[in-house]
Amino acid sequence: MNPDKSLFTPTDTPVGLDPDDWEAFVRFCTERLRKTVQQLSTVANDKVWSPIPETVKQAIAEEIPMKPQGIEQVCSDIEDNILPYLLGNTHPRFFGWVHGTGTAGGIMSAIYAAAINANLGGREHAPVYVERTVISWFLRLFGFPFSATGLLLSGTSMANVVALSVARNKYGSVNVRTEGVAALPNRMVGYTSAESHVSISKAFELLGLGSRQLRKIPVNDDFTMNTDLLRERIADDRSSGLIPFCVIGTAGTVNTAAVDDLSTLGQICQDEGLWLHVDGAFGAMAILSDEFRTQLAGIEFADSLAFDFHKWLHVQYDAGCVLIRDGEAHRNAYSTSIDYLHNGDAASGGAPWFCDFGPELSRGFRALNVWFTIKEHGLSRLGKNVTRNCHQARYLRHLVDHHANLELLAPVSLNVVCFRYRMSSMTEEDLNNLNRRLISLIQESGIAVVSQTMIGKALAIRVNITNHRTRSSDLQLLVSAIDKLAPVALSGIVEAAGQSN
Amino acid sequence: MNPDKSLFTPTDTPVGLDPDDWEAFVRFCTERLRKTVQQLSTVANDKVWSPIPETVKQAIAEEIPMKPQGIEQVCSDIEDNILPYLLGNTHPRFFGWVHGTGTAGGIMSAIYAAAINANLGGREHAPVYVERTVISWFLRLFGFPFSATGLLLSGTSMANVVALSVARNKYGSVNVRTEGVAALPNRMVGYTSAESHVSISKAFELLGLGSRQLRKIPVNDDFTMNTDLLRERIADDRSSGLIPFCVIGTAGTVNTAAVDDLSTLGQICQDEGLWLHVDGAFGAMAILSDEFRTQLAGIEFADSLAFDFHKWLHVQYDAGCVLIRDGEAHRNAYSTSIDYLHNGDAASGGAPWFCDFGPELSRGFRALNVWFTIKEHGLSRLGKNVTRNCHQARYLRHLVDHHANLELLAPVSLNVVCFRYRMSSMTEEDLNNLNRRLISLIQESGIAVVSQTMIGKALAIRVNITNHRTRSSDLQLLVSAIDKLAPVALSGIVEAAGQSN
Repeated sequence: MNPDKSLFTPTDTPVGLDPDDWEAFVRFCTERLRKTVQQLSTVANDKVWSPIPETVKQAIAEEIPMKPQGIEQVCSDIEDNILPYLLGNTHPRFFGWVHGTGTAGGIMSAIYAAAINANLGGREHAPVYVERTVISWFLRLFGFPFSATGLLLSGTSMANVVALSVARNKYGSVNVRTEGVAALPNRMVGYTSAESHVSISKAFELLGLGSRQLRKIPVNDDFTMNTDLLRERIADDRSSGLIPFCVIGTAGTVNTAAVDDLSTLGQICQDEGLWLHVDGAFGAMAILSDEFRTQLAGIEFADSLAFDFHKWLHVQYDAGCVLIRDGEAHRNAYSTSIDYLHNGDAASGGAPWFCDFGPELSRGFRALNVWFTIKEHGLSRLGKNVTRNCHQARYLRHLVDHHANLELLAPVSLNVVCFRYRMSSMTEEDLNNLNRRLISLIQESGIAVVSQTMIGKALAIRVNITNHRTRSSDLQLLVSAIDKLAPVALSGIVEAAGQSN
Repeated sequence: MNPDKSLFTPTDTPVGLDPDDWEAFVRFCTERLRKTVQQLSTVANDKVWSPIPETVKQAIAEEIPMKPQGIEQVCSDIEDNILPYLLGNTHPRFFGWVHGTGTAGGIMSAIYAAAINANLGGREHAPVYVERTVISWFLRLFGFPFSATGLLLSGTSMANVVALSVARNKYGSVNVRTEGVAALPNRMVGYTSAESHVSISKAFELLGLGSRQLRKIPVNDDFTMNTDLLRERIADDRSSGLIPFCVIGTAGTVNTAAVDDLSTLGQICQDEGLWLHVDGAFGAMAILSDEFRTQLAGIEFADSLAFDFHKWLHVQYDAGCVLIRDGEAHRNAYSTSIDYLHNGDAASGGAPWFCDFGPELSRGFRALNVWFTIKEHGLSRLGKNVTRNCHQARYLRHLVDHHANLELLAPVSLNVVCFRYRMSSMTEEDLNNLNRRLISLIQESGIAVVSQTMIGKALAIRVNITNHRTRSSDLQLLVSAIDKLAPVALSGIVEAAGQSN
């Protein structure tokens, strides 16, 4: 039917939380937007990271505001107390962790998403079609069949939970949703590498399977899962009466960006009748790189795949995704039939809703940010950035290899370089102390942010290059900073050693 | 140490995904921002909801873009295909579901959050202190002790998962994290009302407890849990060798906004040694209303509380929260010790991180949106909006009570009114068909969005007023629309009945 215009009477003056003067509000916002974007455009001239003064921490920790402070005050507080003390991942020399840089365009996307204020749990509105489109793009990109399904989530940690819950429920010999894990006659066990992400283990805990039922298979010298040991362990568990149900491969480990041999994992899963889940948090995006996607060979065997948009695709936080080959199993794990949902009235729309594929009913419009970034830049350009970051990692390896006091600690597969500062006269313990101190000095200098991890017993300086603003000169600057700061770190170690004598 | 300025050499021309011309980018964004805000300021003059034409659905479902489309094209696509086809929750006559309205200021907050692009998993940066502050505000507001902890999440569904996982692990007689639910010698059971939210049941499924281990206790005439039956069921389960571990009370059910008798639930949980979790998705915000907070009496007994900021606090989607009285149990359920985390280097900051309190490691800066809205408007004003919505619900009840053809189907406790159009000559089945059709007609007219639910065997028109833009005149308009559209709906029912004869 046509709308009856007579029912649309003009509303009176606004009430509630709206601005008294919308024009003034717009002027204010446009000025602040201009200032914020200008700061972003010159971020390379800032320090990457700065310690937060106690006075700033105290200012943030104010009492709960009962009275309105007004938007000007709130924005001033953000500019004074928050913007100067960020982690640094928008800066070209942020190499600390696999955090995406974000894009300028992402600010425009955020404006729309905030104005729209959609809940993507389900129902009939255009945002739902945007999320469906984004999911379909990545299902096609990774070669999943048309019957496959997917869901956007906050990140790979949650995507791993959803994927493993679907696998648990599908392989359970009872109805796990209703009866619970305790009703299974035999324990279900899964397999992943010793280098896999902590979120895999946490998923086993959350799902009630227990982290002891996740076997951590030792890795080869290149930090990929030892698939011979995997086969042996599966056989051992079967002979013990346990029920192996899934293997979790990693495409890009956190420590060294190693990519498991997914082809062999796929073959093992086919032979053994197991679910193959791939944790591709950042590494899966190598699919976009003409040069490096070969490292993902075998990913087409995945029954489920988890990855992030907010890492190597630079979509603003937070945005991850799970893809599930068996769409029916996916829906069976989460769908419900509830009185106030799915009613077939016009605005409720048809089933399935997104809440039929995961634990969330309230879900923001992160799909817009993904859609926006991919449409604005195109996958080709995004893929070239992936390739360039991998080349930059190789350039840093080159700098390390040709430096008298730097030692590479792990092979460079994608975009992570693990190395340390080394002096031949020092013990391993002193070297670890030296490099630990050096990492903090680099961070505190504001020149770069790097992180640390353990490679065997050696404490490594870990450089992740997942950054579209990084140039090769930034890596030269990092090595220069190490040269300048190593003597400072060394003097600290020598002093400490002197004091302990 | 001081930064060595000599290491900061100017960077050369930008590469990657940044705008070629930042000035042009700012001009573009400010123009689009102005347009978007202007549309929001006149939203009351638009239709609340419109069906999405097939051509628009097809336009959204484009092939994955390999080449850049540019920001102008993306924004045009949003303006053409998305903005006209929203669910309507920014409109004063959106009464469909308990969706918040959002605020204009939330757009400014989103600009900052996108520019900052923080990952709130942990580490040392100002955004972490903002989230800690927001959590502390609500811990104090609900009277939790200083040792209590909390976490922001996408919404109450996830908050329920986290709360119940902590309860499960605390009450489990084995180490559930490592050993799994199957290692428990006896089944753990929980209790909630038959009117509780589906996310409670889904949480039991996800956690491996099984939804059959969640007892759905029948409700009283006012749709609150029958606490006598609760006591009986706990006793029955104990005598069957099961392990009762938690009661989940609801502060604001989805169907009628009923608030369980939390004082009695608290007493039962103390008597029985059970964990009391309160699902207060929207109802918990009645704490801000001088007039209606008495309905929450007993909420101070809660061991954990889940609620949303994006509903009655109008923070932009998505933003929910869990609060846990036993902070140690909370941390024990999620914290880990991992090589590349918590290293004690400067930028890593101190433990605990937010990922030590939940399943997510990647977490966006939703805390900024909460912080922004509360600081901008103050809790008093936000509370007055809660009160006004409850008054508006009573006004609508008054309109229903004084209307010859409208019948109230449930008591009005907070902000939800369930009623139906009624003609005495019709069967119950025909009345349900009539009201189902009427709901779609109201939606399709663009005048208002209401939803449907079942109250017993009666299909109800469900009106949620969680909207700071709603005025009493909007409720009059809704009733006028019902008067106009009921005959249309009725003719459809009569025709259908004629055809089936």
